[in-house]
Amino acid sequence: MKVEGKHYRSLWADPLGRTVGIIDQARLPHAFHTLELRTVHDVAEAIRSMQVRGAPLIGVAAAHGLALAMHRDPSDANLHATVDALNATRPTAVNLAWALARMKNVLSAVQPGEREAAAWREAQAIADEDVALNEAIGRHGLALIERAHEARGRPLNVLTHCNAGWIATVDWGTAVAPIYMAHDLGIPVHVWVDETRPRNPGLLTAWELASHGVPHTYITDNAGGHLMQRGQVDLVLVGADRVTRRGDVCNKIGTYLKALAARAHDIPFYAAVPTPTIDWAIEDALAQIPIEERSAEEVRWVRGLDRDGRPAEVAVASEATPVANPAFDVTPAALVTALVTEKGVVPATEAGLLPLRP
Amino acid sequence: MKVEGKHYRSLWADPLGRTVGIIDQARLPHAFHTLELRTVHDVAEAIRSMQVRGAPLIGVAAAHGLALAMHRDPSDANLHATVDALNATRPTAVNLAWALARMKNVLSAVQPGEREAAAWREAQAIADEDVALNEAIGRHGLALIERAHEARGRPLNVLTHCNAGWIATVDWGTAVAPIYMAHDLGIPVHVWVDETRPRNPGLLTAWELASHGVPHTYITDNAGGHLMQRGQVDLVLVGADRVTRRGDVCNKIGTYLKALAARAHDIPFYAAVPTPTIDWAIEDALAQIPIEERSAEEVRWVRGLDRDGRPAEVAVASEATPVANPAFDVTPAALVTALVTEKGVVPATEAGLLPLRP
Repeated sequence: MKVEGKHYRSLWADPLGRTVGIIDQARLPHAFHTLELRTVHDVAEAIRSMQVRGAPLIGVAAAHGLALAMHRDPSDANLHATVDALNATRPTAVNLAWALARMKNVLSAVQPGEREAAAWREAQAIADEDVALNEAIGRHGLALIERAHEARGRPLNVLTHCNAGWIATVDWGTAVAPIYMAHDLGIPVHVWVDETRPRNPGLLTAWELASHGVPHTYITDNAGGHLMQRGQVDLVLVGADRVTRRGDVCNKIGTYLKALAARAHDIPFYAAVPTPTIDWAIEDALAQIPIEERSAEEVRWVRGLDRDGRPAEVAVASEATPVANPAFDVTPAALVTALVTEKGVVPATEAGLLPLRP
Repeated sequence: MKVEGKHYRSLWADPLGRTVGIIDQARLPHAFHTLELRTVHDVAEAIRSMQVRGAPLIGVAAAHGLALAMHRDPSDANLHATVDALNATRPTAVNLAWALARMKNVLSAVQPGEREAAAWREAQAIADEDVALNEAIGRHGLALIERAHEARGRPLNVLTHCNAGWIATVDWGTAVAPIYMAHDLGIPVHVWVDETRPRNPGLLTAWELASHGVPHTYITDNAGGHLMQRGQVDLVLVGADRVTRRGDVCNKIGTYLKALAARAHDIPFYAAVPTPTIDWAIEDALAQIPIEERSAEEVRWVRGLDRDGRPAEVAVASEATPVANPAFDVTPAALVTALVTEKGVVPATEAGLLPLRP
């Protein structure tokens, strides 16, 4: 999508120069900067520090990291060690494991001397497929928005949580893709953007929507229930970090509270998910999905701009204050109206999902 | 309760010196400072700027403000004008209107020349009654905690939202009073403290609990649903800014989301409310309670300490980002397990509440 009038993807590769370009998302929304990653360590660190973030983009970034690693040492040992190291950067995101498994399959099948070129090709293919996939999610979600708008005959209010926009993917985004398409078609859409503490990735969503000209309002995570109760939310549209074969949705912490509120008010709750986000091995989401407990510092420290417009951080809580920071939660399938995938809109049930299984 | 080993109330009056002392709550938890208010304008500004905050304390502060005003001009005209001006400082808190109506009744019945002395006496009586009332709430809530602890035979996890602790009242607090009593009796209690964006009054709760030695953990507002789902919350205990005759609870924004989650997991949800918080005139909470829409700046700017430990603020969102900031929400009575009042624990129904009507 566009930034300052220029089209960007959120990651771009230069196989000849052996660099991977990214938008430094840790500096958004206050500053727009790009970074050039030159080693797999750069990539791992960018994932760990959330300079690249968003489940789909993490997978694409890791694939490109493997390409950088294959230049330095294309041996079996380094292939395996690098896959393991990249897998460990963010344990919850299934796309990471998926992309790395795909890369490993392809690279294991070719001689070490051919691995670097094969890795760049495959990583590029994963990136291009992500764009096509998100565009398809957008088209399917657009149909839901069109129907909801026709039924109401007034501007549609959509609530979203976290950032499932284009910068969380290579382009288009997942949950926000249908909104961009609706807006571009002239369907009046207004987006309630959950701040999404900690780290406030809702600011990224607001930044994206502002760049694209989509009407939106930034709210605290506490406000959504009240807005639903007052009839000010027509549908909820979120992304997902992992979806189980039964349709349970693991997404950024707080999603579950919005799903409960949506159900209480008969508001449709959709999760937009590329099918690679479906983890066919998970039967019992609560028992089997590891919930990443992230650093207390993410809760204690809040980043922004000071009165002079310079990047700054303040500690809201002191080091002495005990803090817990579970990063994700599970929304049971029963609360999910439907899943919006690149292959169509399907019920959040095992029967609904199985036809999508590769 | 105690601060640095010394017992404080959150407000203290000196009728001879014509000053009202308060803890500057806008500087908590990072700095503990007291302020001396000398005029009704000081009091109004302290309420508006949330240097005094918490529904019960606001009423007590306004009563003392009226005493200061009666020194300068005890006329009927000034009595009426001051009551109106103080009433306008925070439109949602019913205690404010209640305390001012009580003061006005008492002062209207005496000659202007006796009004100052009568005002100090009545304001002091309101403060003392608040302490006694919160102690009674604490005792009734303690019984609930004792029973819940006996049933489980392990440390009890209580989730609370916003600050309903002693500094929101004159002493003891409402929702936190039973927790202090349980802790003092040796019942192992751990408190999940919701941050409560915007303004993060959960920090005040964490500061109180730390000062008193009660185990607690500070969490984002997004985390509670996940913790309930994982069996890590045994009961929810919140305060209220206003309760309707039918038992609907108007409290800090986000309370409703926690009530929905508590219901989904069969976790008892209690609101601790002094009976003056019950608004007998409200039949339909959603239609009749005005929800204060506070400044967008409260959401945009986050206060804390910088890396050098100095008070500082950062803007998370820019002035260009549209922001909504509804400050309260309504939790329907059907989600409230019971109300903990100074007169006992009662069902959140009209039949349950009517016996408490004055």
